[in-house]
Amino acid sequence: MQIKVVKRLMEASEQHAEVVRQRLREAGVVALNLISAPGSGKTSLIEATIRELGNRVRIGVIEGDPDTTRDAERIARLGVPVVQINTEGGCHLEATMVLRALDEMPPNGLQLLFIENVGNLVCPVVFDLGETYRVAVASAAEGHDKPAKYPALFRTAQVTVLNKIDLIPYLDFDEEQFACDVRRLNPQMPVLRVSCRTGEGIGEWLKWLDEVLKPVV
Amino acid sequence: MQIKVVKRLMEASEQHAEVVRQRLREAGVVALNLISAPGSGKTSLIEATIRELGNRVRIGVIEGDPDTTRDAERIARLGVPVVQINTEGGCHLEATMVLRALDEMPPNGLQLLFIENVGNLVCPVVFDLGETYRVAVASAAEGHDKPAKYPALFRTAQVTVLNKIDLIPYLDFDEEQFACDVRRLNPQMPVLRVSCRTGEGIGEWLKWLDEVLKPVV
Repeated sequence: MQIKVVKRLMEASEQHAEVVRQRLREAGVVALNLISAPGSGKTSLIEATIRELGNRVRIGVIEGDPDTTRDAERIARLGVPVVQINTEGGCHLEATMVLRALDEMPPNGLQLLFIENVGNLVCPVVFDLGETYRVAVASAAEGHDKPAKYPALFRTAQVTVLNKIDLIPYLDFDEEQFACDVRRLNPQMPVLRVSCRTGEGIGEWLKWLDEVLKPVV
Repeated sequence: MQIKVVKRLMEASEQHAEVVRQRLREAGVVALNLISAPGSGKTSLIEATIRELGNRVRIGVIEGDPDTTRDAERIARLGVPVVQINTEGGCHLEATMVLRALDEMPPNGLQLLFIENVGNLVCPVVFDLGETYRVAVASAAEGHDKPAKYPALFRTAQVTVLNKIDLIPYLDFDEEQFACDVRRLNPQMPVLRVSCRTGEGIGEWLKWLDEVLKPVV
């Protein structure tokens, strides 16, 4: 009984993801689903991107959080359209939530859409939101063992952004181990080292974005 | 239909938690359910505690992770009984898993049991494991906005451990905002500032442990 219900829910969820994908394709928008642990710097990465690309790429943002509108306020300050989804304790975004957000912020006219998922390395991985690419964000401060311990995200993402590399001198972070574990899970995936705080490595991230935006802009 | 199924599952889960609680009470064990985001330092806090208290308090550890036995190996190196639970992608521990772990590591003879939950600020909060106290662990590197954005954990914990305070000089971490948000959610809850890396503040944590162990040791 339980399994049937879950299966039906997942099928409905996949259908909604297809509707999102279709809407975004028609609007010519590249959508990135940002998944990470809480406090890895997803919002900071979006802010850094807006500061660098905002004058030549039309960006929109969907913010997912269990509570507060703090992230949406940070984005709105940069003059970019943003919708906040509060899951009210929910542990992940689902495609239906993205559909409602797109009703409030129609994608036509946008080129790049950030969907910042709830900070959670487990549950968001299971739900297709209809995104074009899935971006795994990790913070060096979380330790090098996260890909090994939470493999599903790193197996299914198209790019990994390792943030807060400015803290590495103050951590026991084994970069080689981190890179090895990611390669083992997903041999082709690029791992981009950045510090949203100092700006180091952001150029590499912008280069990756330029590649995925090429068909659009 | 779906709601009925979920309700039945939650009731079963609560019954299992009561069984755990009863077993621990009979054995005279204080059990701590450690909940945090991935990489906040739950395992490091357990290691620091074992190093300080291991010679006078009989400690056992249950480690929860989606994958790998790395945490259990870290604990085993300190000569303390440990059981690893791999949730195989699951986002939280449940009382039934704790029951199976207690079959492998009978609590009689232990005084303090650490149950390290899956790194996740959302889902573990919903599940009573039958623990004596719930411990929220946060890392300064995650940012001061975590209590506001993930309020449920901080509302329901009995103590908050703010770890990695040695990194604060290199972060934009607003300690006053963090403390304010925690106080607003849970006015009586102590917030202990520690660095498992440098040992700073561990004394305050040991004092808190001494208080909760008093009826037992």
